[in-house]
Amino acid sequence: MYEAKVTIGLKKGVSDPEGANTLKALKLLGFNNVKEAKMIRIVDLLIDGESKESVRKSVEEMCQRLLTNPVIHTYKIDIVKK
Amino acid sequence: MYEAKVTIGLKKGVSDPEGANTLKALKLLGFNNVKEAKMIRIVDLLIDGESKESVRKSVEEMCQRLLTNPVIHTYKIDIVKK
Repeated sequence: MYEAKVTIGLKKGVSDPEGANTLKALKLLGFNNVKEAKMIRIVDLLIDGESKESVRKSVEEMCQRLLTNPVIHTYKIDIVKK
Repeated sequence: MYEAKVTIGLKKGVSDPEGANTLKALKLLGFNNVKEAKMIRIVDLLIDGESKESVRKSVEEMCQRLLTNPVIHTYKIDIVKK
């Protein structure tokens, strides 16, 4: 078994409404020391596979077909054996 | 400046509909090797502060007041100087 973590962020220049609203809400609560807020998502997968390489290939395909949108997202795949 | 990453996950036993739907969609696409899918969120904050300790205290308060729901979430705070 392998654990694959896909960390999905937004490309530079793409607006991040969730982050912007979080920043606004923090400021309204009086946290004026916060300068920036960004949201990042991680999809944590447990995968049956023969090797780290085959799992990476499979996760790469999942990213392209379902997990990420190439127009707005950047992603990073980390795999560890379980 | 400090960068604080708040990693927010769900407590054991709390249902994760986003993860469940991701798993279902991956299986429908033919990725039958995926056994589990969990969603984790990271709030990435840029904070002005005097020390790591004061920033941690401030972020801890943000978690309690806005970022997390103590009934369903677990969270972890990582702080690095920028």
